[in-house]
Amino acid sequence: MKIAIIGAGSSYTPEILEGLASLRERLPVRQIHLMDLDPARLEVMTGFCRRFAARLGFEVEWLSSTDRRAAIEGARFVLTQIRVGGNAARVLDEKIPLRHGFIGQETTGPGGLFKALRTIPAMLEIARDVEALNPEAWIVNYSNPTGLVTEAVSRCTRARIAGLCSGGLFPRWWAAEALGAAPEQVHYDYFGLNHLSFAYHLTVNGRPLTADELARVAARLGGAVDAGLVQKLGLIPSPYLQYYFHRRRALSRAQARELSRGEEVQRLEKVIFTAYADPHCDEKPGALAKRGGGGYSEVALGLMDAIYNNAERTMIVNVPQRGAVEGFPPEAVFELPCLVRADGIHPLRQAEVPRAVWGLVAAVKNYEQLAVDAALSGSRDTALLALLAHPLVGDYDAAQALLEDMLQAHRAYLPQFFAS
Amino acid sequence: MKIAIIGAGSSYTPEILEGLASLRERLPVRQIHLMDLDPARLEVMTGFCRRFAARLGFEVEWLSSTDRRAAIEGARFVLTQIRVGGNAARVLDEKIPLRHGFIGQETTGPGGLFKALRTIPAMLEIARDVEALNPEAWIVNYSNPTGLVTEAVSRCTRARIAGLCSGGLFPRWWAAEALGAAPEQVHYDYFGLNHLSFAYHLTVNGRPLTADELARVAARLGGAVDAGLVQKLGLIPSPYLQYYFHRRRALSRAQARELSRGEEVQRLEKVIFTAYADPHCDEKPGALAKRGGGGYSEVALGLMDAIYNNAERTMIVNVPQRGAVEGFPPEAVFELPCLVRADGIHPLRQAEVPRAVWGLVAAVKNYEQLAVDAALSGSRDTALLALLAHPLVGDYDAAQALLEDMLQAHRAYLPQFFAS
Amino acid sequence: MKIAIIGAGSSYTPEILEGLASLRERLPVRQIHLMDLDPARLEVMTGFCRRFAARLGFEVEWLSSTDRRAAIEGARFVLTQIRVGGNAARVLDEKIPLRHGFIGQETTGPGGLFKALRTIPAMLEIARDVEALNPEAWIVNYSNPTGLVTEAVSRCTRARIAGLCSGGLFPRWWAAEALGAAPEQVHYDYFGLNHLSFAYHLTVNGRPLTADELARVAARLGGAVDAGLVQKLGLIPSPYLQYYFHRRRALSRAQARELSRGEEVQRLEKVIFTAYADPHCDEKPGALAKRGGGGYSEVALGLMDAIYNNAERTMIVNVPQRGAVEGFPPEAVFELPCLVRADGIHPLRQAEVPRAVWGLVAAVKNYEQLAVDAALSGSRDTALLALLAHPLVGDYDAAQALLEDMLQAHRAYLPQFFAS
Amino acid sequence: MKIAIIGAGSSYTPEILEGLASLRERLPVRQIHLMDLDPARLEVMTGFCRRFAARLGFEVEWLSSTDRRAAIEGARFVLTQIRVGGNAARVLDEKIPLRHGFIGQETTGPGGLFKALRTIPAMLEIARDVEALNPEAWIVNYSNPTGLVTEAVSRCTRARIAGLCSGGLFPRWWAAEALGAAPEQVHYDYFGLNHLSFAYHLTVNGRPLTADELARVAARLGGAVDAGLVQKLGLIPSPYLQYYFHRRRALSRAQARELSRGEEVQRLEKVIFTAYADPHCDEKPGALAKRGGGGYSEVALGLMDAIYNNAERTMIVNVPQRGAVEGFPPEAVFELPCLVRADGIHPLRQAEVPRAVWGLVAAVKNYEQLAVDAALSGSRDTALLALLAHPLVGDYDAAQALLEDMLQAHRAYLPQFFAS
Repeated sequence: MKIAIIGAGSSYTPEILEGLASLRERLPVRQIHLMDLDPARLEVMTGFCRRFAARLGFEVEWLSSTDRRAAIEGARFVLTQIRVGGNAARVLDEKIPLRHGFIGQETTGPGGLFKALRTIPAMLEIARDVEALNPEAWIVNYSNPTGLVTEAVSRCTRARIAGLCSGGLFPRWWAAEALGAAPEQVHYDYFGLNHLSFAYHLTVNGRPLTADELARVAARLGGAVDAGLVQKLGLIPSPYLQYYFHRRRALSRAQARELSRGEEVQRLEKVIFTAYADPHCDEKPGALAKRGGGGYSEVALGLMDAIYNNAERTMIVNVPQRGAVEGFPPEAVFELPCLVRADGIHPLRQAEVPRAVWGLVAAVKNYEQLAVDAALSGSRDTALLALLAHPLVGDYDAAQALLEDMLQAHRAYLPQFFAS
Repeated sequence: MKIAIIGAGSSYTPEILEGLASLRERLPVRQIHLMDLDPARLEVMTGFCRRFAARLGFEVEWLSSTDRRAAIEGARFVLTQIRVGGNAARVLDEKIPLRHGFIGQETTGPGGLFKALRTIPAMLEIARDVEALNPEAWIVNYSNPTGLVTEAVSRCTRARIAGLCSGGLFPRWWAAEALGAAPEQVHYDYFGLNHLSFAYHLTVNGRPLTADELARVAARLGGAVDAGLVQKLGLIPSPYLQYYFHRRRALSRAQARELSRGEEVQRLEKVIFTAYADPHCDEKPGALAKRGGGGYSEVALGLMDAIYNNAERTMIVNVPQRGAVEGFPPEAVFELPCLVRADGIHPLRQAEVPRAVWGLVAAVKNYEQLAVDAALSGSRDTALLALLAHPLVGDYDAAQALLEDMLQAHRAYLPQFFAS
Repeated sequence: MKIAIIGAGSSYTPEILEGLASLRERLPVRQIHLMDLDPARLEVMTGFCRRFAARLGFEVEWLSSTDRRAAIEGARFVLTQIRVGGNAARVLDEKIPLRHGFIGQETTGPGGLFKALRTIPAMLEIARDVEALNPEAWIVNYSNPTGLVTEAVSRCTRARIAGLCSGGLFPRWWAAEALGAAPEQVHYDYFGLNHLSFAYHLTVNGRPLTADELARVAARLGGAVDAGLVQKLGLIPSPYLQYYFHRRRALSRAQARELSRGEEVQRLEKVIFTAYADPHCDEKPGALAKRGGGGYSEVALGLMDAIYNNAERTMIVNVPQRGAVEGFPPEAVFELPCLVRADGIHPLRQAEVPRAVWGLVAAVKNYEQLAVDAALSGSRDTALLALLAHPLVGDYDAAQALLEDMLQAHRAYLPQFFAS
Repeated sequence: MKIAIIGAGSSYTPEILEGLASLRERLPVRQIHLMDLDPARLEVMTGFCRRFAARLGFEVEWLSSTDRRAAIEGARFVLTQIRVGGNAARVLDEKIPLRHGFIGQETTGPGGLFKALRTIPAMLEIARDVEALNPEAWIVNYSNPTGLVTEAVSRCTRARIAGLCSGGLFPRWWAAEALGAAPEQVHYDYFGLNHLSFAYHLTVNGRPLTADELARVAARLGGAVDAGLVQKLGLIPSPYLQYYFHRRRALSRAQARELSRGEEVQRLEKVIFTAYADPHCDEKPGALAKRGGGGYSEVALGLMDAIYNNAERTMIVNVPQRGAVEGFPPEAVFELPCLVRADGIHPLRQAEVPRAVWGLVAAVKNYEQLAVDAALSGSRDTALLALLAHPLVGDYDAAQALLEDMLQAHRAYLPQFFAS
């Protein structure tokens, strides 16, 4: 089996390698094709991967190129982890909105919109190659914003794609830790969008959690969302809900920070890549742990295992909802529990959605539809309506000014908006 | 035929009287029973109504009492126009939210929530009397917030209720004026909630409006919503959308005003009631025109005519949607075009809803459900979740402080929240 | 205004003329273009129409041709009343199924399937001409089976089409007669397919009918459906339900008849056309009353009036249901109460469907979908599955034999099944 | 863990015992409480079970009583396998309809209706005991008609119930055998009602079956449904579909049989019970294999294992569909793939249903709703409407006569229809 990694210059790549090595008995990978548009990063990463694999005793053939089609051809899984514009663009997504009085964040709010506008055209090119060259392959995507990317790819191509995020696993891990249970004894319903999701109806060994137990699980959120609010809601929100439920606090904190998260990551990545480039380094550098994103590899490997081995497993994935939730079009992508097998990813019906937050999810889903429309059409008007529809923006006058600033700042990566 | 007017001390009452007089050939009213909890206002109003009716040559028997059940008994239509806490409470609804950085408005935002919390219990008492004493009667409600009131009454009683607002007629009037057409030649689809509604797919003589014609209609909004935005949306929003689409401007304007609208109304009403009380006055005072609310009487009379005469007519009314719009529970009240006849009010299917705003409507509908829950239960937690769900609030920390202030300020009219 | 009549050689044409004459003040028709593939019938009909119009004092220009496109061009309404294969084919539809132990009927059961297979391709040609030459025109169809024809045309073209039948009016007329009320005081919900429809929730002056009153209305069915059954169902079925509810009796009666209805019609038409051909005849022949189909003209004229004059009216029409009934795809054509205006035909939401018969309607709708598929594709397999899905056939072994007989018998009019 | 078996006098009981013995490591059963209304059968069965368990080396405590409440108390699972009226009533269900020209069958058609009318009241008594005494227990039902029983119990009680049938497993077994694959490598979508179900979208190792492979699977149906029809449908129907798709053949065959299946079973059971009663017999008698019903035990044990061990497994079960299929009320019971875990049985969304048969399923579901209504109300009218709605009856005149015959024949077991 061959695996392609698109955007292999990402600092995450060694985590995937490590995961593949640990799962080698179930996933007989023979060839890994690393692909990146940046030859320098690619070379560093290929070198490190060879050394790291050797240290792990993981025998696999390494290919490396800047040619996307070569990487895709023959691959059973195409892992996509691209970042159009790199961390420099992310920093703009974080900082420009703050000047207009809106939260600046990689995936939430106006920053997420612009990340989508840059990423979707690139992901569509990849998906069209998969569709043409290798229609049986699965795209395993963790390019953010993964929900929007998955919706655009599903809408425009017949490529098979799973939009991954580790967020769906956290409530299980937190509950297991807090209650001293095995993770597989914890179940819940789950509803929402990527980074706007809610775990509810939690059970352990089939028994509903008590209010006290829920509070203990909620404590694992570390205050990202107020503990009292979690009690009132009776569910475990994604920590990203802090940007909605504590929007004022989140904004003022962000305005008060010296470095944005993107800037911190830029510093960290320098340290990490220096280590990767060291020809004697054959272990994950310590700084990688601070980089974040843990759990992605577990989700991606679980998914590939379930598909490759036809090993029916429930996992939380971003997919077109196809009737799993009431009141939305079938093609709308939601982050949902799914049954994953060789024949596909089947979202599970969520018969009841949480009473206090479904309107918020609907509002953000409406924004997402408009955002995908804008990414595909390059229409300024649609981008403006997307900002207007976003619950964290909503104001037309401010949205107009923000849109212009953002379009100019990201101009190099938004050709669809600047065609003559 | 008997008509009961509950809250007859309202300054609007003479407009209803005028409407009934003008329609006397189709609606043979023999008795009008005025009811109000305030005997002083009631006496003034009864006196004026007798004189005004005499001047109009409208022969009808006048009854007047503070006994609600007496008024309801035998009435074919029960008109409800109550204001719990009077304009003094309205002024608090307008002013307290401003201090917390939120818009203060009679029906939109936190002010609307508290108006609902005060009004719903009183309206339920009325509806339960109708249900018990006079189940065939129709409650013709224009107590605000009319959507929330109608949802609560429909959910808890079997009384027949129509939630009225003149807002649904404005796009027709505006289009007729702007295009030089007869109003009945203008049609449109219509979707939304009271004071959060959208007219779209406008036609005149069956022909869709051009972009230019739409702009001419939009100009009638008088800038409440930006003309460029109206073009991009391709629909005519309710002017109340200014509180959403121009939330920053609306907030700063409100903070800059010397008098709130409620305070202006208090002043106007003094002038109006002085006139009503004058035993020589038998005409509507000039100040009444500044009071606002025109069109209510036209809508109420059209509805009573259609029901009484079984004269199948389409009108925009707040009713449980029963499948007229996709993706919401059947009992959710929406403001929708309806077929009105003697056998009831039948909402018309709106097969497509406007792509750019359905998420906003969903978010506000979610708030409304929680607001009704809170009004019925007296639960502070639910009231807090309602504020959190409201797109114009959304922030938990600020909502907590605001809730406490509002509950204390309105304590006298919120017994359900202060039961021992 | 120009009106085109396609299939103008039909004996019904004078009824339409009479209707147009009587409505001339509301519908200013200046030109009527008669079109038929049969020049002989066309000539006879044109001659008679001129004489009849003269007698009625109806001044209008008469055009006549076998060129469909000429007729369609410039017409505001295109009336279609074609019968592919003529009454000879109808007689086969009636007689062949009887030999296989199935009911033989013009629109119900296997006969209706073959009428659809013959008619749909011809109607699509007409609709494509309308789409290309005259997209604003309305096709006013009463070619049977009107539901299937309308579904095929709506699915494959953007031509505007209304599928008419007088059946929706009968419950109103029966109730008005039985209860001594004005027809416009009678209302009901209505659900089903053409010739498989149910009026329920009947009211007169807004008041629900008593069981006794319902029985009096039901008596007008003349025993087509058993009176006791009507009571138990609590609704007024179309008389065509006799073929379902009394399928054994209907079959044995049909098997015992000497002449099929089609054969009777053939005899009648000879008499009628002899009269039409008489150059002195300028009045409707007496035999026409026995021909059936009364009410069609009333429905067609009401529809044209509502559209032409933008005179918002509720009528029962076959249209894509677009969410008016739960649980069926939006493009499925149902016979439903609709709001008819210049901007289109809007089916009214039927929030509750009759509990005892929805499954029968679903089964027949499923058959209809397959029948349309078969008509479009010319697939024998699909035609067989359509017969299998039909509640009056259902048996695979018998369906195979029947299909072969019917295909051979109608071979000349089913080119799509016999392409090399 | 305690298990209760209600209707333990059934000849199937030893199969359950055998299953429990083989699964003893995963299901630590300590006590089995056999309950039956017939003390003689109960005594025989208890004796045999003790001997058979001893032979299997299965150590468990045996309780035996005619007291239902004693059996239910403390049980983790309550297995129900009752047959009200015994095989004598079954024979009537098979024979009376034949005289009226309808198929006579245990679960399909009029026979199934009367089995439901007899069984539902008895099952409700059991379910109400479970609800009151032991609300955490699961009722594992294989009393037929299992879909109707499950719908009645779910509608009227809060007892947890799974309606089992082995039918859902057959397509998997057939495909595995036909294709030489492991059963767990075969997956499919599945839609329908008990004994009216369809497996489609079959895959093996995630790959869709070819037409040729499907034909090889279909061959396992043994001609119950014609192989050519299976090809055209592109799915694997339940063998019970023979009563629909080959209704004429099924009827004439049944009319030609000397003994009905129920009469054969009566003979077999004599042989089987003689063996059970033999104090030296400690093995399943050979005749049991001819009794049928194999697979039930596998399904029941798989379900109990998944629930007890919280071992997330997909199984086909009859449950309220709760949005898993479009267009039916959430409480309607369907036979569907479900995710089974300790926290409940979650039906999986079936996003597409088979195009050629959904109408048949809808028609039978409509019958089932009316049948449950009739069983609960004892209304003759509703029972008549149920027969009328059934696609295999449909004729009102014949249904009336049939109903009277059946009611009289089963009078002793239908008290709800004969209350004074």
